[in-house]
Amino acid sequence: MEIASRQVLSPAYRLVLRLEIDNRPGMFARVAQRIGEMGCSLGAIDLVEATPQHTLRDVTVDCPDEGTGVRLADSLRELDGVNVRAVSDRTLLVHLGGKIEVKGRIPVRTRDELSLVYTPGVARVCRVIAADEERAWTLTMKRNAVAVVTDGTAILGLGDIGPLAGLPVMEGKAMLFAELAGVNAFPIVLGTKNPDEVIDTVVRISPGFGGINLEDIAAPACFYVERRLRELLDIPVFHDDQHGTAIVVLAALRNAAAVVGVPLASLKIVIAGAGAAGIATARLLAEAGVRAIRLCDRQGVVHSGRADINEDKRATVRDLDPSAAAGTLADAVRGAHVFIGVSGPRILSMDMLRSMARPRIVFALSNPDPEIDPIAAAPETDIFATGRSDFPNQVNNALAFPGVFRGLLDSRSSSITTRMELAAAEALAATVVAEARSAEYILPSVFDRDVVPNIAAAVAEAAAASGVARRAPRVQGLG
Amino acid sequence: MEIASRQVLSPAYRLVLRLEIDNRPGMFARVAQRIGEMGCSLGAIDLVEATPQHTLRDVTVDCPDEGTGVRLADSLRELDGVNVRAVSDRTLLVHLGGKIEVKGRIPVRTRDELSLVYTPGVARVCRVIAADEERAWTLTMKRNAVAVVTDGTAILGLGDIGPLAGLPVMEGKAMLFAELAGVNAFPIVLGTKNPDEVIDTVVRISPGFGGINLEDIAAPACFYVERRLRELLDIPVFHDDQHGTAIVVLAALRNAAAVVGVPLASLKIVIAGAGAAGIATARLLAEAGVRAIRLCDRQGVVHSGRADINEDKRATVRDLDPSAAAGTLADAVRGAHVFIGVSGPRILSMDMLRSMARPRIVFALSNPDPEIDPIAAAPETDIFATGRSDFPNQVNNALAFPGVFRGLLDSRSSSITTRMELAAAEALAATVVAEARSAEYILPSVFDRDVVPNIAAAVAEAAAASGVARRAPRVQGLG
Repeated sequence: MEIASRQVLSPAYRLVLRLEIDNRPGMFARVAQRIGEMGCSLGAIDLVEATPQHTLRDVTVDCPDEGTGVRLADSLRELDGVNVRAVSDRTLLVHLGGKIEVKGRIPVRTRDELSLVYTPGVARVCRVIAADEERAWTLTMKRNAVAVVTDGTAILGLGDIGPLAGLPVMEGKAMLFAELAGVNAFPIVLGTKNPDEVIDTVVRISPGFGGINLEDIAAPACFYVERRLRELLDIPVFHDDQHGTAIVVLAALRNAAAVVGVPLASLKIVIAGAGAAGIATARLLAEAGVRAIRLCDRQGVVHSGRADINEDKRATVRDLDPSAAAGTLADAVRGAHVFIGVSGPRILSMDMLRSMARPRIVFALSNPDPEIDPIAAAPETDIFATGRSDFPNQVNNALAFPGVFRGLLDSRSSSITTRMELAAAEALAATVVAEARSAEYILPSVFDRDVVPNIAAAVAEAAAASGVARRAPRVQGLG
Repeated sequence: MEIASRQVLSPAYRLVLRLEIDNRPGMFARVAQRIGEMGCSLGAIDLVEATPQHTLRDVTVDCPDEGTGVRLADSLRELDGVNVRAVSDRTLLVHLGGKIEVKGRIPVRTRDELSLVYTPGVARVCRVIAADEERAWTLTMKRNAVAVVTDGTAILGLGDIGPLAGLPVMEGKAMLFAELAGVNAFPIVLGTKNPDEVIDTVVRISPGFGGINLEDIAAPACFYVERRLRELLDIPVFHDDQHGTAIVVLAALRNAAAVVGVPLASLKIVIAGAGAAGIATARLLAEAGVRAIRLCDRQGVVHSGRADINEDKRATVRDLDPSAAAGTLADAVRGAHVFIGVSGPRILSMDMLRSMARPRIVFALSNPDPEIDPIAAAPETDIFATGRSDFPNQVNNALAFPGVFRGLLDSRSSSITTRMELAAAEALAATVVAEARSAEYILPSVFDRDVVPNIAAAVAEAAAASGVARRAPRVQGLG
C-alpha cells in the first residue's frame, strides 16, 4: 500500500498573523518565502490598512505543528521591515466560552408555559415518577443523557494533566455526541484521582443519566473503576478508551481480512501496548474468533512468568495466550500478519516490519505520532491504518461511541455486553459495502450518516438478545 | 387590598378528552353542562370524525386540580351516549423525552472542524490550561456552567420523593436558567441523602462548573451542606430555597414598605416557618436593617428556652431575637405589621390576621395552598402576596436565581456574600419603578426583560466590592 510523501498541515495549527510590512518592492515575497521555508502553507491574505509607509495584512498560515507556528512568528519578527502586530490562534478562538450549551427543548416565554414545565404543573410529573420510577425513562432527560466522566489522568496522549485541562476534550466529545447521535452528553470532570472516590461519585450522580461514558482514565485504575461501576449500576458503563477502540479496531480488521482474503480467525496478531486500549482490543478480538493474539508492552511480550505486570495484564494473557514466554516486540512480530499499535511513537522498526508474514496488516494508532512512519511503512504492507485524519483508514473512536450510546439509550439497556460490542463492530464494518471495500477504504468516514443508525440498531438488537434491554429495538436509531 | 373571588383554573391541569358522542340533539350540551358543574372550563373543541351515529371530538378542559380532572373523566363516562375514548394530559405530554438538550456551540460537520474542536487541535487547548488553570475560565464551559444539585429530600412541597422524581423540577430550573439568563445549567440528582456524601460528591464534580445551585434539600441538612461547600469550594454555592426566597421576599418587602410609606426598619415582622426559607429570610431581612423579627415554627415561637429546636434555629434566634419567649403563632402576630408565611396551608386564621397592626402586609407563600385564603384575607390587608402565579404579587424564586448566577458567572466570583444578596434584592425591587409601584405591583414579572440584567449587574458590582470577583463587572449582564 502506497501513501504519497507530503508535508502534513493541519487546520488545527492555523494561525492568523497581523503583519505590518514596509511598503518596499519585494517585501511580501520575503514574508511568503520565509513561510515556505518553515514548512508552513500560506492561506488567505487580507489587507487591513495601507499607508504610503506600510501595509497592514492579516495572513492566514497552516503549520505542521504548534512549535513551528511559534518559530515562524519569531522568524518573521527578525525580518527587517516586518512587524508582527498580533498572532491569533484559530483553535483557541473557537474554544472561547466553551464548546457546549444547555437549552430547553420547549419554549418558556409565558406564564402558561412556565406553569407547565415548572411549578405547579411539574409537581404532577414528580408524583407520577415517585409512584413508578420507570416513568423517569420517558418523562425526564434520563432517556437521552450520558455523563462523560474523566479524572484527568490520561488526557489524550498528554497524561495526567488534571480535570480542568481535560475539560476541552470532554466538551469536544459532548459535541460529537450531539452532532452525530443526538445524545445529550454532559462533561463531568472529577477533582479526585482516587479510584474508589471516582466510583462513589459516579454512582451518586448516576440517577439522572441513561449511560456513563468513562474517558481518559489511566490504566490500570480504569479497569477497576469500570468493573466496579458495572457491578453497581443499572445503566451501561462504557470506558471508551477501552471498548470504543476495540470496536473500531475489530471493524477495521474484519474489513482488512476481507480485502486480503484471509479469515479473521487464521490471522496471527501482535498488539503493542497493554493499557486500556490494548487489553480491551485483545479481549474483543478473541471474542470475535481470533486465536493467535500476542500482547506486548514496553518490556516486551506480556507473559505469566513476569513479576512486573499488573493483574489485568496477567489475567489477559492467562485467558488469551497462556503459552506466551519471554521475548521482545521484535520476536513477537516475526511471522505475524497483523501489528496493532496502541502504544507510542516509532517503536516498530522497518526491519521488524519486514520480518512480518504476508498478508501484512499494520494499524499504527499512536496519535499524533504513529508506531512507524506511515510514508515509509505503508508500501511494505497490504493494509495500513493510523489514528490520524490525514492518512487513509483512520481508526477513530468517534466511529463507535455515538452509535453505541444511541443504541444503548434507545433500548434503555441496563448494561453493555460483549455480544453488543461485537454487534457494533460488525455493523460498523458492514457500513463499508463489499463492493467499495479496498486497501484504502476499510472504515467509513466519521461523517458517514449511516454509521450511527447502523451501529445503534445492531446494539439495540443485541441488547434485546442479551436480555439487558428495557425496551424493544426500534427500526430507526436516531431519535 | 381586594382580590376578586374566582375559581382558579390552571393550564397546568389542562386535559384533552377524546369523546365519542351519540348523534342526538342536546348531547354536547349535556357534556358542556357536566364540565361546568365540575368547576372546569371548556376550551377548544375539535371535530375528529363524524358519522350518522356519533361525532368524535377532542375537547380541551382546564381543571382546578388533578383530582377534579380524574373525576370529570369518570363523570363523563357515566353519561349515557358518551364514550370517553382517551384522556391526554398536556403536562405529561410536554415532559416526554425530558425538557433540556445539550448542543455544540459551533458546528462539527467537516474533518477540518473536527480537528479543531477534537483531536488533534484540542490538545493545544488542554496544554494551555494545564500550564495555567485560570485559562479554563475562558477556554471551557466552566465560565457559564452551573450544576443544579438535589438529593431529592424536599422536592417542592412533596417532601422526600427521591432524586428521580425530583429530576423534572431540576430540568425546569435548567430551562429557566437557559431561557432567562443564558446560563448552561445541568441537573445533577444524587443517589444519596447522607449530607457528607452530598458534600463530597459536589466537591468532586465541581471543577467543570462556575457555580453550584443547591435545590430542594431538606432542612436542617441543607444548612450544613451549604456551609461546608462554601468553605471547601472556590466557586459560589447558593441554596436557592434559602437565599433565592430571601432575596425575593426582601425585594417585595422593600417595595411594600414604600407603598405603605413606612421605613423597612420600623416594621414588626413575624416569619412562620423556620426551615430553609424561613431562616435565610430572617437573616437577610436583619442584614437589610429590619430590627423586629420573630420566628415561629409548628410549635410556636422559636426561642432559646426550647429543647426541641435544631442548632440553626437556635443560632438564628440568638442572633436576631434573643429576648424571644414561649408563645403561639397567634401571640406572635398580634400587633405585628408583617406576616411572612413559608410554612404550610391555612395556619393563619382570620382572627389572627385581624389582630395584626396597620399597615398590614401579608406574604402567604406556601404553594399551592397559602397560609390563609387569599380571597378572604386580601381585603383585610394593605399588601397581600402569594407564591402563586394566579394572584397579584407572586413571590417567585425565578425572579432571583437567573440574575444572581448571571452576575456570579460574569464576575467569575469565588463566592457569594451577604452584600451581593442585598444588592440583588435592591436591584430586583428597583426594577419596579417608583411611579408604577402599587399595592398590587410590588414585584416585576418573571418575564420582565430588565430583571436579569439589573440583578446581574448589581451582583457583579457587589462581588467586586466584596473582593470575590475574578473579573471586573461589565455593563451588560447577559453574555
